Amino acid sequence: MEVLGIIVEYNPLHNGHLYHLEESIKLTKCQYVVAVMSGNFVQRGEPAIVDKWKRAEMALKAGIDLVIELPVVYATSTAENFAYGAVKLLDSLKVIDCIAFGSEEGDLEKLSKIADILLEEPPDYKRALKENLGKGLTFAKARELALVKVTGDESISKTLQTSNNILGIEYLKALKKIKSSIVPFTIKRRGALYTSLKLEGEFASATSIRKAIKEKGIKAVKNYVPDFTLKILERAFKEGQGPVYLQDFSPIILYLLRSGHPLENIFDVAEGIDNKIYKAASKTSNIKDLIKLTKSKRYTESRIRHILLHLLLKIDKKLFKEFDGPNYIRVLGFSEKGKTILKEIKKKTELPIITKVAQYKSKIEDSRMFERDLFATDVYTLAYKNFAISKLDFFHPIIKL
Amino acid sequence: MEVLGIIVEYNPLHNGHLYHLEESIKLTKCQYVVAVMSGNFVQRGEPAIVDKWKRAEMALKAGIDLVIELPVVYATSTAENFAYGAVKLLDSLKVIDCIAFGSEEGDLEKLSKIADILLEEPPDYKRALKENLGKGLTFAKARELALVKVTGDESISKTLQTSNNILGIEYLKALKKIKSSIVPFTIKRRGALYTSLKLEGEFASATSIRKAIKEKGIKAVKNYVPDFTLKILERAFKEGQGPVYLQDFSPIILYLLRSGHPLENIFDVAEGIDNKIYKAASKTSNIKDLIKLTKSKRYTESRIRHILLHLLLKIDKKLFKEFDGPNYIRVLGFSEKGKTILKEIKKKTELPIITKVAQYKSKIEDSRMFERDLFATDVYTLAYKNFAISKLDFFHPIIKL
Repeated sequence: MEVLGIIVEYNPLHNGHLYHLEESIKLTKCQYVVAVMSGNFVQRGEPAIVDKWKRAEMALKAGIDLVIELPVVYATSTAENFAYGAVKLLDSLKVIDCIAFGSEEGDLEKLSKIADILLEEPPDYKRALKENLGKGLTFAKARELALVKVTGDESISKTLQTSNNILGIEYLKALKKIKSSIVPFTIKRRGALYTSLKLEGEFASATSIRKAIKEKGIKAVKNYVPDFTLKILERAFKEGQGPVYLQDFSPIILYLLRSGHPLENIFDVAEGIDNKIYKAASKTSNIKDLIKLTKSKRYTESRIRHILLHLLLKIDKKLFKEFDGPNYIRVLGFSEKGKTILKEIKKKTELPIITKVAQYKSKIEDSRMFERDLFATDVYTLAYKNFAISKLDFFHPIIKL
Repeated sequence: MEVLGIIVEYNPLHNGHLYHLEESIKLTKCQYVVAVMSGNFVQRGEPAIVDKWKRAEMALKAGIDLVIELPVVYATSTAENFAYGAVKLLDSLKVIDCIAFGSEEGDLEKLSKIADILLEEPPDYKRALKENLGKGLTFAKARELALVKVTGDESISKTLQTSNNILGIEYLKALKKIKSSIVPFTIKRRGALYTSLKLEGEFASATSIRKAIKEKGIKAVKNYVPDFTLKILERAFKEGQGPVYLQDFSPIILYLLRSGHPLENIFDVAEGIDNKIYKAASKTSNIKDLIKLTKSKRYTESRIRHILLHLLLKIDKKLFKEFDGPNYIRVLGFSEKGKTILKEIKKKTELPIITKVAQYKSKIEDSRMFERDLFATDVYTLAYKNFAISKLDFFHPIIKL
């Protein structure tokens, strides 16, 4: 049994994702595919446009056999934390043979070399990095120039400019760090960049698709997503369950900030960013303006969104320290073939497999991380217009295809 | 100098209010009028449709000379607390000669007799009350029947059915309780009941006016409010500062409940109403549904709204115990004539007069109650579409006419 692992968000699943999946299967020749997928909140520091069950359904319709939820603690953090959480989770299933990720670069060797340096930090790299930081460069820039210096490869600057390369490097770092036997592959991405706002070309980005849905309605994206995505989205919107946007949580986040809710226990809060956020919250009731007022070279929009989401979802930074990766396997959905993999995982893994959420307390020794997922759903469904119940994780059936 | 005190909300100020003001002046022959007015949240357990400065402007335009804010702690509580806070505040100004309130009843003697019994609780009343409660009647019903029994006056049942009579009785109780020298008057209300939803007749109710604004726009109410009210509302809405509705705070309140935020320190929470509220919050994301799911004979909509607002505004029930009425005089606005009254108050009162909010800490010994007003404004402005700044109490000029 050859099992491929992929790390996805499917926000929503589009033609580019289908292409990546097909190419990955071709390349790795695996018979089974397991996806680790972000839950109701994603790495951009936003809620997903529709909930995790609807996106798991898309994944299964696309041919994936098993969908596992990436805990919200990791799903809404830095590229490094996101990648570590996802790779560690895939590895802990004990059945994954290879992973395939998309990258703008497409050259695994090059990404791997960068990952090695970043992980091992050889003396010349460390020295160059320190020098650059001393000059007042941002960490990202200092790191980039140090890498160029020690490799003599100027093209690395370009490599580090796109988010899928950066995520790919983090996947490779994580695999090396945990000494995983999983074999990595990369697929060169085609079509628009992840961040592109334009709906055009063969493959549109998820960002441009969400934007088009917001501005023009769901019909506008029909050439860029599979039919099943379109149907799942249509049904969700008709039922008043989405589209969900960060804006929906704006009053809550602003309220917490104006209440002086502490930010000091949130990951990545340092250098006075907390005061800057409080100050911005006193000037606006709109989360977009809040982010604009707060962002800087050092604190990008996405770092700030992560902080705000961790405030909203009560994610304490100590969870990152006290847990070495996810300590449970939460199943969101599976196909017929997925049952076989699940059985195999059950035999091999040391982690509890959560299929019935009601049993989580007896199954997970330290359930603090899992409880963040439950709370994230309680918050997420506040944006529903219908059936906006809490404790949905306890009631929602696993998606089966 | 003869000074009339009135207790108002002006949400918004309409023709019925103008009538009451004119009649009160005629009846009491006072030359000056001081209004104690609810701030940004009102006794119905809702935000006011526009903020306290805009409503103070309406009051001044209507001919009132001085507008004092009723602390939000009292403004958003039971009729008894509302009345006690407002009467105590008026009394502590030390310049008020009489107060005039509207009532459906119009007969001061009758209301006063009821107030006496409720305050003094003679043995036969107490016995009848206890008996009725033993039969499982609600407190309101048990009280009503006990009053009828001891007075032999069956018409009291009808008297106790309308909110302005009930408030009036509470004003009279409060005056007696603090042994105030202020002389009470009542004006028989004309036109629609306070709670009427229909926009009709000579005087429409504030409720029906707000409803018409929400459903049909501001033009629909032009026959029911003075021109200045219309202009102030139009300007406010144009500037993105209102209309503000309870709905605007729905996500925050639901979030707090789904977070399991404790309700036990909130006034009037007993008999398991907290669990009922939590349960309802797990079933809906809409505050109207939440209230519908929670209300009962014992816990009316308005009691539940008070609880939810106290949760939102972080009003602890111990404030009611630890303070014997407002401990500051917050000036919202004054006319030329109002200056004279302010000077007189300054000479006579023992309470600090707050005209510059920045000085509040040095002026108010225990500023916990005042800080609830400041926070209420910070929360209120979250519903603004523009200029949604916090700390507005520090910046907003006093309204002068």
